[in-house]
Amino acid sequence: MKKIINRTDDVLTEMLDGLTYAHDELVARVNETGIITRVQHEAGKVGLVSGGGSGHEPAHAGFVGKGMLNAAVCGEVFTSPTPDQILEAIKLADQGSGVFLIIKNYSGDVMNFEMAKDLAEMEGIAVESVIVDDDIAVEDSTYTAGRRGVAGTVLVHKILGAAADQGRTLADIKQLAEALVPRVKTLGVALSGATVPGVGHPGFVLEEDEIEFGVGIHGEPGYERTKLQTSRMLAKEIVGKLKKEVQWTAGDHVALLVNGLGATPLMEQYIFMNDVKALMAEEGLIVAFKKVGNVMTAIDMAGLSLTLLSLTDDWLDLLHYPVQTIAW
Amino acid sequence: MKKIINRTDDVLTEMLDGLTYAHDELVARVNETGIITRVQHEAGKVGLVSGGGSGHEPAHAGFVGKGMLNAAVCGEVFTSPTPDQILEAIKLADQGSGVFLIIKNYSGDVMNFEMAKDLAEMEGIAVESVIVDDDIAVEDSTYTAGRRGVAGTVLVHKILGAAADQGRTLADIKQLAEALVPRVKTLGVALSGATVPGVGHPGFVLEEDEIEFGVGIHGEPGYERTKLQTSRMLAKEIVGKLKKEVQWTAGDHVALLVNGLGATPLMEQYIFMNDVKALMAEEGLIVAFKKVGNVMTAIDMAGLSLTLLSLTDDWLDLLHYPVQTIAW
Repeated sequence: MKKIINRTDDVLTEMLDGLTYAHDELVARVNETGIITRVQHEAGKVGLVSGGGSGHEPAHAGFVGKGMLNAAVCGEVFTSPTPDQILEAIKLADQGSGVFLIIKNYSGDVMNFEMAKDLAEMEGIAVESVIVDDDIAVEDSTYTAGRRGVAGTVLVHKILGAAADQGRTLADIKQLAEALVPRVKTLGVALSGATVPGVGHPGFVLEEDEIEFGVGIHGEPGYERTKLQTSRMLAKEIVGKLKKEVQWTAGDHVALLVNGLGATPLMEQYIFMNDVKALMAEEGLIVAFKKVGNVMTAIDMAGLSLTLLSLTDDWLDLLHYPVQTIAW
Repeated sequence: MKKIINRTDDVLTEMLDGLTYAHDELVARVNETGIITRVQHEAGKVGLVSGGGSGHEPAHAGFVGKGMLNAAVCGEVFTSPTPDQILEAIKLADQGSGVFLIIKNYSGDVMNFEMAKDLAEMEGIAVESVIVDDDIAVEDSTYTAGRRGVAGTVLVHKILGAAADQGRTLADIKQLAEALVPRVKTLGVALSGATVPGVGHPGFVLEEDEIEFGVGIHGEPGYERTKLQTSRMLAKEIVGKLKKEVQWTAGDHVALLVNGLGATPLMEQYIFMNDVKALMAEEGLIVAFKKVGNVMTAIDMAGLSLTLLSLTDDWLDLLHYPVQTIAW
């Protein structure tokens, strides 16, 4: 394992300390916990909390700040945070109007976030939540019943964060989330596995000319191993699968996110986006919002994913709403 | 070679098309050239132009926008752009108050940018320039007489870009650049080589337990190959070398940039920053500005660099000055 780290046991704590040192004008770490919180919350607004295992940087701590999350709860690498830490984050995020939890669909996260929700409600805090399951690759998976939550989660952070900043109520945000999540769809392709520091070797190994479609952000199996293909063919496969799922029609307005999985340079992400562009034109879709970069990584996995969000209502405005975060 | 690309000959053009598609609210590509320019320039202000070979994304196109560059000239991967393209960029950037060129110190870039400067002056445009040579690793190198220009160049973009946006004159910007560049120092460490698409294999190969200090952003040799070490030891080596060069004293104000070289996850960059933090405290330096992320990459090289800028005058304000770019 070739990584710039110290003791593998210290990866989480040292990473969070480095992150908060680098961005102390925006975020702070709560004591020795995995909680990264805004330096300043705003009274009266609904608080947004997300999180999960670490190893997906900049998610989720990179999206803490005005206009997005109030706090991110960071578990050990690829491991759900504990309910007591999530509860503490909920308390911090509560500014008198309740707290909304954005949970990626992994069994551990769902269990622990829901337990924290129950505990917070017993303490009199109004809490609502949504489970994001945007990955269309497979049903059920190594750590998941149903579909996995992946890069599309960041678009959920963005849109709900803007709504919260506008002062919408907890009930409004819950309603928005329930309309939003079913319209966020993602599919990825991996060129290599990810190495968890505490494990020391890649979770899976692909041959030099081999790729895998639909791999999860913890290296969970995808739906097909095949030979390396051109960017154009990768885009065709992924857009084709998204089309089957979304069943769009020409003229629909969509948002696109090309997400690098950690080790894939921007060069490749932009080339892929250029191929997606051509397919969007063929389909007659109006691409009203685009983003390219590493937002939800899988440590040092090579590969990328494409997220497509079918826009409606004022979602485009919410995507463009200004934020103050490390990584949006 | 495992990359998400189509034909290797099309890498540059497809990457630029993908980039401008993704960010068409900020930048545009000039016809089929390697010139990425602001969508909107501001009359009367000095125009800033930078560029060089591609493969360092987000540099330099990611730093085009209000408050930073007016245009970036993107050559083929690791290859200087041609004088005629640089000349065209100068003409575009000229808003009546002259143009300032920020050139990384590589023989090809220096020659071509200076040729373009001469041509522009013959057409009546006032042009000044600075050569950035922040890499303290080695004197003279594969493509360089003197020291190489690397990640610190982006801090030069930032500070001069803010000065230009404030309406300072070409002469003022020249003076600022000449004070600034000698105070920007960078040193890096590589964990792997970079693969140029047209070449198809890494420029150099390191063993599984081997690293190299001082490698250039095109894979030029560094000053020492050694065994993989902890992040703490890497930070100690790099900060130690920077200290010998800068000869700071306790109480000095500095800016820090931890720059990922392409394949190194934020996790490792933050851990490294945390180790730098401890050393800065030992040295009694006041770290007034910090940045972490991939700003000047070497395609898919694993590794990172640390840039230290000794602050003076109002440079901190210029670093904090608002910008509208893809990647700052």
